[in-house]
Amino acid sequence: MKILILGGDGFCGWPTALHLSKLGHEVVIIDNLSRRKIDVELEVESLTPISHMSTRLAAWKEVSGNQIEFISLDIAVEYDRFAQLLRDTKPDGIVHFAEQRAAPYSMKSPNHKRYTVDNNISATHNLLCAVVDSGLDIHLVHLGTMGVYGYKDYGAVIPEGYLEVEIKLPGGDKIEQTILHPADPGSVYHMTKTLDQLLFYFYNKNDRVRITDLHQGVVWGTNTEETSRDERLINRFDYDGDYGTVLNRFLIQAAIDFPLTVHGTGGQTRAFIHIQDTVRCVTLALENPPDHGSPVQIFNQLTETHRVRDLANLVSELTGVEIQNIENPRNEAAENELTVDNKCLLDLGLQPTKLAEGLITEVIDISKKYAHRCDKSKILSRSRWIQHKKS
Amino acid sequence: MKILILGGDGFCGWPTALHLSKLGHEVVIIDNLSRRKIDVELEVESLTPISHMSTRLAAWKEVSGNQIEFISLDIAVEYDRFAQLLRDTKPDGIVHFAEQRAAPYSMKSPNHKRYTVDNNISATHNLLCAVVDSGLDIHLVHLGTMGVYGYKDYGAVIPEGYLEVEIKLPGGDKIEQTILHPADPGSVYHMTKTLDQLLFYFYNKNDRVRITDLHQGVVWGTNTEETSRDERLINRFDYDGDYGTVLNRFLIQAAIDFPLTVHGTGGQTRAFIHIQDTVRCVTLALENPPDHGSPVQIFNQLTETHRVRDLANLVSELTGVEIQNIENPRNEAAENELTVDNKCLLDLGLQPTKLAEGLITEVIDISKKYAHRCDKSKILSRSRWIQHKKS
Repeated sequence: MKILILGGDGFCGWPTALHLSKLGHEVVIIDNLSRRKIDVELEVESLTPISHMSTRLAAWKEVSGNQIEFISLDIAVEYDRFAQLLRDTKPDGIVHFAEQRAAPYSMKSPNHKRYTVDNNISATHNLLCAVVDSGLDIHLVHLGTMGVYGYKDYGAVIPEGYLEVEIKLPGGDKIEQTILHPADPGSVYHMTKTLDQLLFYFYNKNDRVRITDLHQGVVWGTNTEETSRDERLINRFDYDGDYGTVLNRFLIQAAIDFPLTVHGTGGQTRAFIHIQDTVRCVTLALENPPDHGSPVQIFNQLTETHRVRDLANLVSELTGVEIQNIENPRNEAAENELTVDNKCLLDLGLQPTKLAEGLITEVIDISKKYAHRCDKSKILSRSRWIQHKKS
Repeated sequence: MKILILGGDGFCGWPTALHLSKLGHEVVIIDNLSRRKIDVELEVESLTPISHMSTRLAAWKEVSGNQIEFISLDIAVEYDRFAQLLRDTKPDGIVHFAEQRAAPYSMKSPNHKRYTVDNNISATHNLLCAVVDSGLDIHLVHLGTMGVYGYKDYGAVIPEGYLEVEIKLPGGDKIEQTILHPADPGSVYHMTKTLDQLLFYFYNKNDRVRITDLHQGVVWGTNTEETSRDERLINRFDYDGDYGTVLNRFLIQAAIDFPLTVHGTGGQTRAFIHIQDTVRCVTLALENPPDHGSPVQIFNQLTETHRVRDLANLVSELTGVEIQNIENPRNEAAENELTVDNKCLLDLGLQPTKLAEGLITEVIDISKKYAHRCDKSKILSRSRWIQHKKS
């Protein structure tokens, strides 16, 4: 297949591009390098020493013999160039990672909120417009988030995108309907992914665009089979208060003997997936497009769920570093249960990498190895979800 | 109250501004005059001869003694100026009409789709950001659309925003939940209003912003008590294929003895409201804000429902002009029933203006009076909902 990877320089995009290239697909990376530029803004760097794009691609050519093309382009802004690119390249599939993806970053200030909404919505909508305008039959695979469902806890299992409900009719009868699972975003970033869902719904309904939306859990791990083949191919490891996800923060805290900071009680249950499984899931999605005329295909992309305090305990036991509970900067439930259906990807053949197996590799090969590159002052989150308290 | 009217130069915004001013409120209109500029682009003009803003405001001062301030500002773009304006003016309420509101215009081309999404989402989101950033307790009243619910016909009554559903739990028990009514937009324009709903949901949940969303039906009629007081105050009457709504199109077609063009069978049932009732409803909403900590308040703003072919028949009987069925450019159900709950606004005191009473005034005072200003070549819609047919 010919596949465009939008956001192919990022944490999920880069290893996905390599994996698809290894499998023999023709891969084109499109990226505006916004993730690296945000590091400049935040005065922080990936813990792992990531190479420039040209170095990455040259190294990949060297170790694999495969060529990946890179085009520097901002799909949220350069619509005409992107539309022309589609006409020229005629891809079979497009993987869309090209969104600002950190919840704390999206809550930092009005301008960060606005950038996240304007960038993410224009990117997704430009993509949909261009695909329709091209007249090509392209399968779009989008990285969504488990956060679209929210973490309201009423005992139901979170289904894969669609919820069966009963609605009362006048007269007292009831009718069964299948609806898009109600959205309950917990940050401006998560909100943009709930807006994306409605964009997909409309363009699928009106123009029959074939779309798979992958509602991913929190990703952990750094390298995949492909990014491990040469240090110049190494993947990002974000540990800062904005982009570092919870497990990465614990790992780097452990590596530098800094207490593991748990927001609130740590009773939040979240879904997790290893980066190696992310690239496998995206591949499975590309290989299994929805039929023409089918609704948007939604998979829950996660392999296990954990409570934050259990993760902290696990890392603490592995490393001997203590735990510290701090005030939660987010506006979220202190404790929640989470049961999620992830049957679709398992049925397609996903073999999960479990936390208990992979965690020790992360501690030794990544956190400890690169701990000297860590800027301690960047670890804690400074974003606050609520700016003003109203009575 | 001090009230900002965003989009106060438009079809609904202008009479709303006058009505609120007449009631003694301090009114500031904020508008980028985009609606007039789109007329320039489309090479069409309001059937009624609308005055420039400065003439409008001078005339209003003359006939009412009341001053309305006008600020030329694009809230989708000029965030900092708008945020400063909120801090300076400290309004009690903001009415948000500042969105591109024509479904056919939103479907004309990729650039029209993109403008509609980028403009409408940035406008609504900038507004929400600025309100939170101001720290002020401002009640937002937003003009939504009945189109957020879609026209799927399974026998249920469309509730006011929220739907009661039953969800199955593991083990077989069921639980009742109140959810935002599932969104089913029929055009890019309608889609933007479903995105707005999620923006409101999040900012209400996270920041407790007080919001009323008015899901309005198709507006008919031209003038209100206030816009009738002087010809310089006259309201817009759009009859072109993009901005003219169905009843206006029939009225102007009747006035110039052009067949009444019905899309498809005319079996589409839609909700309607007179512009006079629009301004009353917005006033009722402003006077009845939701409590602090309440969810977004949603009212269905309509007074009656009609099938399109019944409207055509009504106008045909009034005027003797024949009906012509043409191919439907839209991608929508040919026939649908529509039963809508509109109890909230009726309970607050709305006294509906019915079609059967007001229609003859429109025919004589507006359509016939200004028929000489009509450009016949502009009446039919040239937008097509589907650009490319895929197999």
